[in-house]
Amino acid sequence: MGLDANAAAPSSAFKLLFPEIVDHLLADLRQHYDLPSEAIHYIRHNLTYNVPHGKLNRGLAVHECYLAFCAREHKPTAAQLRQAHVLGWCVELLQAFFLVADDIMDDSHTRRGRPCFFRLPNIAMNAINDAMILEMMIYRLLRSHFAHHAAYPHLVELFHSITYTTELGQLLDLTTSQPADHVLLHKFSEDALRRIYRYKTSHYTFYLPVALGMRLAGVCEAHKYDTAKDMCMHIGYYFQAQDDFLDAFGDPQVTGKIGTDIEDNTCTWLIVRALERCSADDRKLLERHYGKKHKESSDRVKQLYRKLQLPSLFAQFEQSSYERLSARIGAIDDMPTAAFELLLSKLYKRNR
Amino acid sequence: MGLDANAAAPSSAFKLLFPEIVDHLLADLRQHYDLPSEAIHYIRHNLTYNVPHGKLNRGLAVHECYLAFCAREHKPTAAQLRQAHVLGWCVELLQAFFLVADDIMDDSHTRRGRPCFFRLPNIAMNAINDAMILEMMIYRLLRSHFAHHAAYPHLVELFHSITYTTELGQLLDLTTSQPADHVLLHKFSEDALRRIYRYKTSHYTFYLPVALGMRLAGVCEAHKYDTAKDMCMHIGYYFQAQDDFLDAFGDPQVTGKIGTDIEDNTCTWLIVRALERCSADDRKLLERHYGKKHKESSDRVKQLYRKLQLPSLFAQFEQSSYERLSARIGAIDDMPTAAFELLLSKLYKRNR
Repeated sequence: MGLDANAAAPSSAFKLLFPEIVDHLLADLRQHYDLPSEAIHYIRHNLTYNVPHGKLNRGLAVHECYLAFCAREHKPTAAQLRQAHVLGWCVELLQAFFLVADDIMDDSHTRRGRPCFFRLPNIAMNAINDAMILEMMIYRLLRSHFAHHAAYPHLVELFHSITYTTELGQLLDLTTSQPADHVLLHKFSEDALRRIYRYKTSHYTFYLPVALGMRLAGVCEAHKYDTAKDMCMHIGYYFQAQDDFLDAFGDPQVTGKIGTDIEDNTCTWLIVRALERCSADDRKLLERHYGKKHKESSDRVKQLYRKLQLPSLFAQFEQSSYERLSARIGAIDDMPTAAFELLLSKLYKRNR
Repeated sequence: MGLDANAAAPSSAFKLLFPEIVDHLLADLRQHYDLPSEAIHYIRHNLTYNVPHGKLNRGLAVHECYLAFCAREHKPTAAQLRQAHVLGWCVELLQAFFLVADDIMDDSHTRRGRPCFFRLPNIAMNAINDAMILEMMIYRLLRSHFAHHAAYPHLVELFHSITYTTELGQLLDLTTSQPADHVLLHKFSEDALRRIYRYKTSHYTFYLPVALGMRLAGVCEAHKYDTAKDMCMHIGYYFQAQDDFLDAFGDPQVTGKIGTDIEDNTCTWLIVRALERCSADDRKLLERHYGKKHKESSDRVKQLYRKLQLPSLFAQFEQSSYERLSARIGAIDDMPTAAFELLLSKLYKRNR
């Protein structure tokens, strides 16, 4: 079964499952907990505001990886595809959990073109608990749908370990950009950047959906998971460098968020490249303006990025990364590679 | 093996295990993650500041319940007692996760006689991620120590379901006390109170340690878990009513925290009793002063509590609860009851 043939269909089938997922989670609450209807209503809002409005690439990737890893002669049943979609929504729940919490930590304003959840009236810091509820719903879904599946312990273990990894990445990201009022340029290095990308983004964005698809397809060999993880770390670096570029130079109307990396003192692909290329005077400008909560300061930093020709450096990086990653995928010989090809093709020259 | 003979020893053995738990978790990080020493140092501080400074009653209760549920002829080995202690520290990690997050949501100032973690310089909203890391460390410990134990799936499932339950309780607590600037007296009822107590406190404070002790002792019968849960819900009501009383009338030097329930518009045992007893004029006073962030307002509410003789009503409640719970424990005939007796004896007339 080819992937292209399903390029349109899985997306809509996947999206259509979301209302069912919500109904299932709320029915589970009604059955096991004596909650007032006001609380059920509140939880429904938490789910519908935070979970389904992203690009859904992570969630859809489970389905795509599952198909890629199924043996060629084995056409998945409707029930099996549904299981892949449930796992996809588990990944989207994990993402929603991280984003709701991260937006508070980063003091962000917008997400997916709307106010961050904690900015809504009557939500505020409740959002911390709401994020935690989204996280635990993953395990409710896994138990309801997979308790008797051979892969169940692996699925639970995957979500645990990747949640932990991502939280450690968030810690690295935060501590590399703090204290907020200090000049931290000395902390920004390619090594620091690579670690943050690896832990904070690549594991949950790429390795998690791939590994879930592999588990569902019954892949057991540890070395295949190692190969997949290694590949995902490389794709993840490319993805997060794009994210950093779009934070400064993307169109907020398209990305759905107003970038805050410069104000937030964040270790990004752009600042690391700038530090490698800048003069002593440029560095002084960065020391004065990086990590300051004024628009003039972040504009000065972006000006310098342009002067150092980082947009065209990024375009070169994008092209060479794409070629290098394609070659690396082509060199994999112990497993199907269609899933990696699809992941990469979706990232190439993305603007959101 | 009697419980009294172990009353002193387990506490110090349990406490002594904590540095080992920390070393184990940090060694696990060093082995699996390429973190800079600064990050390891930060995580050590998260653990040592937030986990070990409470009364440790929940953690110790696992040990006590385990002993109570072991068959009389079976004397636990040192390795088995150690397992009970590891599970006890998992419960303390869960508690630390909740407290760090709750203190942000409640905008609290002090905890266990020191500033709340998020009040520390250079921590602030990072504390959200730090709390989440403490939560995930539970599953690291469970995996390291119990992956090959027959009870492992049950242990993981218990932590999942009780985390979810507690978060739902926190949601009820928050939504019953919000919006902060509204008069919410109509929401405060014995039913609402009972639900908040049940979900927010009783499950993780009482049922979790008891059920962990039972699992470790190899108890399998579902009806025994049902009996234990029912007993724990009753003990939990008594415990949380005490907590509410101490929040208003306890000595902050002894409790280690400055109560904020009145300012926070919280549904408590005191306000529910006050509403049952107050005149129309008293109710107007409560409408004017409950949930206001001024010391004068909370002093006026406490004055009214005294006028309505809630302190002596509480003393009567405490005595009659103790007697009723003792009788209920005495009526249990399908399992050992020493654990419940000990839990209750520790709560009776506590002042912290």
